Amino acid sequence: MKFSKHIEACSLSPIRKFHPYVVAAEAKGRRVHHLNIGQPDIPTPPAFFDAVRNFGSAVLAYSPSPGVEVLLQAIQMYYQNIGIPLSTEDILVTVGGSEALQAVMACILEEGDEILVPEPFYPNYTTFINVSSGRVRPIPTVPGEGYRYASREKIEPLINEHTRAILVTNPGNPTGTVLTNAEKQVLVDIAKEHDLFLVSDEVYREIIYSGEALSSMLEFADAAENVVVIDSVSKRFSSCGARVGALISRNRELISHALKICQGRLCAATLDQFGAAALYQAMTPEYCAKVREEYRRRRDVVVESLSKLPGVQFSTPEGAFYLMATLPVDDADKLQSFLLKEFEDNGETVMYAPGEGFYATPGLGRSEIRIAYVTNPDDLRRSIELLGLGIAAYNQKQEAAR
Amino acid sequence: MKFSKHIEACSLSPIRKFHPYVVAAEAKGRRVHHLNIGQPDIPTPPAFFDAVRNFGSAVLAYSPSPGVEVLLQAIQMYYQNIGIPLSTEDILVTVGGSEALQAVMACILEEGDEILVPEPFYPNYTTFINVSSGRVRPIPTVPGEGYRYASREKIEPLINEHTRAILVTNPGNPTGTVLTNAEKQVLVDIAKEHDLFLVSDEVYREIIYSGEALSSMLEFADAAENVVVIDSVSKRFSSCGARVGALISRNRELISHALKICQGRLCAATLDQFGAAALYQAMTPEYCAKVREEYRRRRDVVVESLSKLPGVQFSTPEGAFYLMATLPVDDADKLQSFLLKEFEDNGETVMYAPGEGFYATPGLGRSEIRIAYVTNPDDLRRSIELLGLGIAAYNQKQEAAR
Repeated sequence: MKFSKHIEACSLSPIRKFHPYVVAAEAKGRRVHHLNIGQPDIPTPPAFFDAVRNFGSAVLAYSPSPGVEVLLQAIQMYYQNIGIPLSTEDILVTVGGSEALQAVMACILEEGDEILVPEPFYPNYTTFINVSSGRVRPIPTVPGEGYRYASREKIEPLINEHTRAILVTNPGNPTGTVLTNAEKQVLVDIAKEHDLFLVSDEVYREIIYSGEALSSMLEFADAAENVVVIDSVSKRFSSCGARVGALISRNRELISHALKICQGRLCAATLDQFGAAALYQAMTPEYCAKVREEYRRRRDVVVESLSKLPGVQFSTPEGAFYLMATLPVDDADKLQSFLLKEFEDNGETVMYAPGEGFYATPGLGRSEIRIAYVTNPDDLRRSIELLGLGIAAYNQKQEAAR
Repeated sequence: MKFSKHIEACSLSPIRKFHPYVVAAEAKGRRVHHLNIGQPDIPTPPAFFDAVRNFGSAVLAYSPSPGVEVLLQAIQMYYQNIGIPLSTEDILVTVGGSEALQAVMACILEEGDEILVPEPFYPNYTTFINVSSGRVRPIPTVPGEGYRYASREKIEPLINEHTRAILVTNPGNPTGTVLTNAEKQVLVDIAKEHDLFLVSDEVYREIIYSGEALSSMLEFADAAENVVVIDSVSKRFSSCGARVGALISRNRELISHALKICQGRLCAATLDQFGAAALYQAMTPEYCAKVREEYRRRRDVVVESLSKLPGVQFSTPEGAFYLMATLPVDDADKLQSFLLKEFEDNGETVMYAPGEGFYATPGLGRSEIRIAYVTNPDDLRRSIELLGLGIAAYNQKQEAAR
């Protein structure tokens, strides 16, 4: 049977190939520390579960396609509180930030269209873009500059008649890079001048470490036609399994087109939407500060531990809960296999996300890895220690083989 | 800003345009009876809510992309019980049947590809097919033949080098038509001979009225490469708001491609998956029989009431909870406007889904309507009575204007 070239161009998760090795290592009694998964261990606020338990209807019915009113209003109020006035009609509730991304791509892409995405980037973007007939055109960055990308010199030479949008993650996954106000202005200016959508994935908004106020690309009211924000409760409230996100834009034509997709899939999960509304209603600055401080503590542990590893290079993350590190090895993918198949220290080993999966440009990222710091500080410290021991053992073995 | 031609070719719900009239009618104190919505009033089995309440984890985490194991096993067992052996690897849990459809279309369609769909058909198919760059090629049917479509004469002349699949809803929405075994065999044979996918949307499987055993296109083990089943808990357990469906196929290449999409969107809602697993575990033949009898009672009320209306033609539905009727009016869309804006009987009026929205061929379905019999028998009886009174008043007015 024939399959579409678009799906053929997509990949299964690159982490999958390591799964049998993890199973084999665990079968030998080894403990595998996971630095590879973006699933936080922070408890979901009880307000979510309370709302779900208190759902009063005997019939779990479809909810309105754009989202339940109480959640739309809660999201509107959340933005109001960070200084951004919105109408509930600027908001569509989606099945996680993922569906918001899918919907935007379906609305703006057709065969041959390109989206500029700074690389390294969140690999699932490729799937969303490919199945909508488009393709990623990477904005190159370098680790030594902290993966910064928002400059005219880097972006404008890549724009051509096929370019439809710039897609950024801010705060960044996998880099932890946070855009400055000046950088945001540059992106907005470029989008306006070249008639591009500026799709800003802001699901890590609260997780920033430099003390600045919460911000959003939606602040640029003069770019109302261009700016599209992807949002989610997943990281904000450690509720990834709720699958409640939002597509937000003041471009009413875009919202009207995206609503067609929302109507097509009928609705997001009804109970989870009420749970999500309760999360917003129960949200306090104290809660956000506590979560942020917890991640900062973890970041500091990772930064401190990594600094001790000879030859490892990285920039200190400014936000989100990821860090890209360049390792003193030939191939982080091979190192990962070695760590799972051959290495152990006191019965323990470690797993990360190899860097190549975050690049569209072939050959890039081979010595890089993404670390997710979503576990407790003791485990993080030990994980980085294992990484250091593993690198030394791997390089020793490589040396011996020469 | 430029939008994709694929999304431009999609439509917002045709019912939407009537919304302001409904609001206005209700503001005048009128009661609008709804025959237009496929949302059953049957209570969701408490097992769903119990499972959700008993969710034990403090973190609402991502679940595995293919679905939680307990649900995959419950679906496997459900099929085992109707005589269809499956591996859990043949199943992907999806966000309702809707996402299963979207995923299949993304896997098999590219620019210029066609899907054969008997019309009238579920309008959201158009959205799923369009955004995957394909287009619907309707298999024509006629009301007088009960909208039957599964014959070589009807289908084979439509097959060309662009045809990728046949997509059927069985039992049918909006027609209530149920395929005979011989008809299913014809579809399977055509699919095999022409290397087509046979996508069978079977979300109404339990709702059949002629006493036959539950069946599925998956029974045709010799068409393992061709058959793809779309399934959902929505109608089976009156739990539309759970958004838990499944994509099922023994074609491992298709499953592997669809898994890329599932990984891209991370997972279906975690809590709802546990709820859905509990629904399957608590399912009994008595429960299914009770629901079926309730719908049969409603169908019989609608059939009896409609039979009394002069000039109204229809076939008695064999399954699902819809009926297509041909009205003695020039335009069911205009009649709907009249019913909402001008008509009332004892302060009440009625709403249905005009037939044109279920056809891809321009001009067809203008005198047809879809009735969803998902409310109680008394309301249904009154709704059909209102329809009859409305038709008479509308035609009288038309006559007077001549």
